[in-house]
Amino acid sequence: MKSVIAILTVVLFSVGASAPVLADKPDQEALLKIAQSLFAPLPETVENPDNPLSEEKIELGKMLYYDPRLSQSGFISCNTCHNLATYGTDNLPTSLGHRWAVGPRNSPTVLNAALHTTQFWDGRAADVEEQAKGPILNPIEMGIPDESVAVSRIASMPDYVSRFQQAFPQDSDPVSYQNIANAIGAFERTLTTPDRFDRFLKGDAEALSDKELSGLQVFINQGCAGCHAGPALGGNIKARFGIVESYWEATREFLTVDQPTMPMDVGRFAVTQDQNDLYVFKAPSLRNITRTYPYFHDGSVWDLRAATQIMARVQLGREIDDTDMDKLMAFYETLVGEIPADALRLPVLPASTENTLRPSSR
Amino acid sequence: MKSVIAILTVVLFSVGASAPVLADKPDQEALLKIAQSLFAPLPETVENPDNPLSEEKIELGKMLYYDPRLSQSGFISCNTCHNLATYGTDNLPTSLGHRWAVGPRNSPTVLNAALHTTQFWDGRAADVEEQAKGPILNPIEMGIPDESVAVSRIASMPDYVSRFQQAFPQDSDPVSYQNIANAIGAFERTLTTPDRFDRFLKGDAEALSDKELSGLQVFINQGCAGCHAGPALGGNIKARFGIVESYWEATREFLTVDQPTMPMDVGRFAVTQDQNDLYVFKAPSLRNITRTYPYFHDGSVWDLRAATQIMARVQLGREIDDTDMDKLMAFYETLVGEIPADALRLPVLPASTENTLRPSSR
Repeated sequence: MKSVIAILTVVLFSVGASAPVLADKPDQEALLKIAQSLFAPLPETVENPDNPLSEEKIELGKMLYYDPRLSQSGFISCNTCHNLATYGTDNLPTSLGHRWAVGPRNSPTVLNAALHTTQFWDGRAADVEEQAKGPILNPIEMGIPDESVAVSRIASMPDYVSRFQQAFPQDSDPVSYQNIANAIGAFERTLTTPDRFDRFLKGDAEALSDKELSGLQVFINQGCAGCHAGPALGGNIKARFGIVESYWEATREFLTVDQPTMPMDVGRFAVTQDQNDLYVFKAPSLRNITRTYPYFHDGSVWDLRAATQIMARVQLGREIDDTDMDKLMAFYETLVGEIPADALRLPVLPASTENTLRPSSR
Repeated sequence: MKSVIAILTVVLFSVGASAPVLADKPDQEALLKIAQSLFAPLPETVENPDNPLSEEKIELGKMLYYDPRLSQSGFISCNTCHNLATYGTDNLPTSLGHRWAVGPRNSPTVLNAALHTTQFWDGRAADVEEQAKGPILNPIEMGIPDESVAVSRIASMPDYVSRFQQAFPQDSDPVSYQNIANAIGAFERTLTTPDRFDRFLKGDAEALSDKELSGLQVFINQGCAGCHAGPALGGNIKARFGIVESYWEATREFLTVDQPTMPMDVGRFAVTQDQNDLYVFKAPSLRNITRTYPYFHDGSVWDLRAATQIMARVQLGREIDDTDMDKLMAFYETLVGEIPADALRLPVLPASTENTLRPSSR
């Protein structure tokens, strides 16, 4: 119940503290005020005192992010499942991985992920640096057998070694698994997508149309901001998926025939073994939500209207009518931001050497 | 025998027509003259009168090149196996494809490929446009079941449709499989990598060092230019791989344990059923050769010295000594060019719609 209480507290506190329930025709000034209390403009970068950003570290992180040699097969890079050409996702229900393994969960977008207070759908990693260490070694993702193999591959390339020295000048042994993760994390800390909604939050009255403002009002009035708040509109709360109704029942009809039959995902319970964490997942960010389909931790629903309706039903016990749904869809469009141009500039990667451990598809 | 005769003719004609065998210390002027008779500077783009280039077509082609929705799984794009971050190759012995199929042949680099007089290792396609139609539908590559599925996926996205209209303004039905191939081909026609060797060929006396010039001289004297001539240093001749000795015997010891046991590749014979085409392959381009490892149609050899020695042995019946090999390696470095910056700028792809055929990993 802790999660549920947390949500209700946020909803009541936020809405209660700021304004009465908003009128149907949006009063832009009032709406801006309450929006500013619930959300925040995206920063250009997300700082981490334990992993300070530098140009060298960000560029190195970008190279590693795009380097398929961080997979055992040499076929899969971070960008394969978190493709920046498609808003940091793979747009698959759940990701494919080493040896064509079908993973159990949907790849969340890397865009604005550094703002999340925990990483992965079940929040099992504290930050993007810790997150980056997971998929490389996961046998059904990138499949590198252990940290030393990843480090040895990278350390076999002189260009990478000198880049690690420049990115981590204080370290006597800069090419380490932790620093691979730190560099990738640093790159990810630059992947924010401020755009129109941020201009609105900063007071630009022209940034959103009336319909989009109405959609924002619906979003707040319906209680969506209870879980989808903060600069990323999500990523900072874990909640049971299916408070009023089971998410499982609500989503099964949307599965494509192609998706493997998987058992009901117990969510964070698998991490903590705490009954309170049963079916608890991190509320995802709604930034770029129109582009990060399919939806939910299992990618079971492709249509954003359907996904929104399911959330209203199973989380809030509500049904959103067509008029409000249209407005919400208009509002969602304002959350699509610009991907930083630097991140989209594909790096030319260092050559392997005779000492570079060869790829293996097995 | 036709292929062998073709090679010998080229060698004798080229060397014979231009100069006597070159002396040990390179005479830069004489070397430039003979080099100009054998090679040519890379153009900025490779024109095709049947597929004229336009900015709109090139940009559209780039989007398609990077779009994983041209694979059945939504997991593999052209760039997966011809990765521009790694000089247009995947640096795997042979490529992985749909459902983790291990292909029978090494992915040739897309860089400068438009200059080849035929495409694929066995020359079964006339140009890059025809080539582009192959992998999308190949069940062990991108695995789209038929042309109409590829066209329907692309045509389901309004942004793509309007880009096809702009790229093919004369066509009444611009979103066709042929035009998908034409757009990708147009993009590939911009992927040339002129650099130092081209400056040398244009007369820049400072472009190559003495050692590199010596390497060029060895390259010519040893007869390498018999097959590796023209602007791409290859790509314009098909020849039996293993004229003096069997390539199979010469390369088996280099196979990694990971590589599947494959029957001896009959090369172009599989296309023509002509005994003269047995073990005949296209001589690949040596542009960017230090970066397009592993080598040969089966990717059996990772080391460029070993690959060069094998070629000398099985094609020319020679052995290259260490001094000459060092020089050749220096010369090869001059063939590494710059990848066009525009090509490395990852496009942000159009969103799928409710009409877009969903990916399937099966």
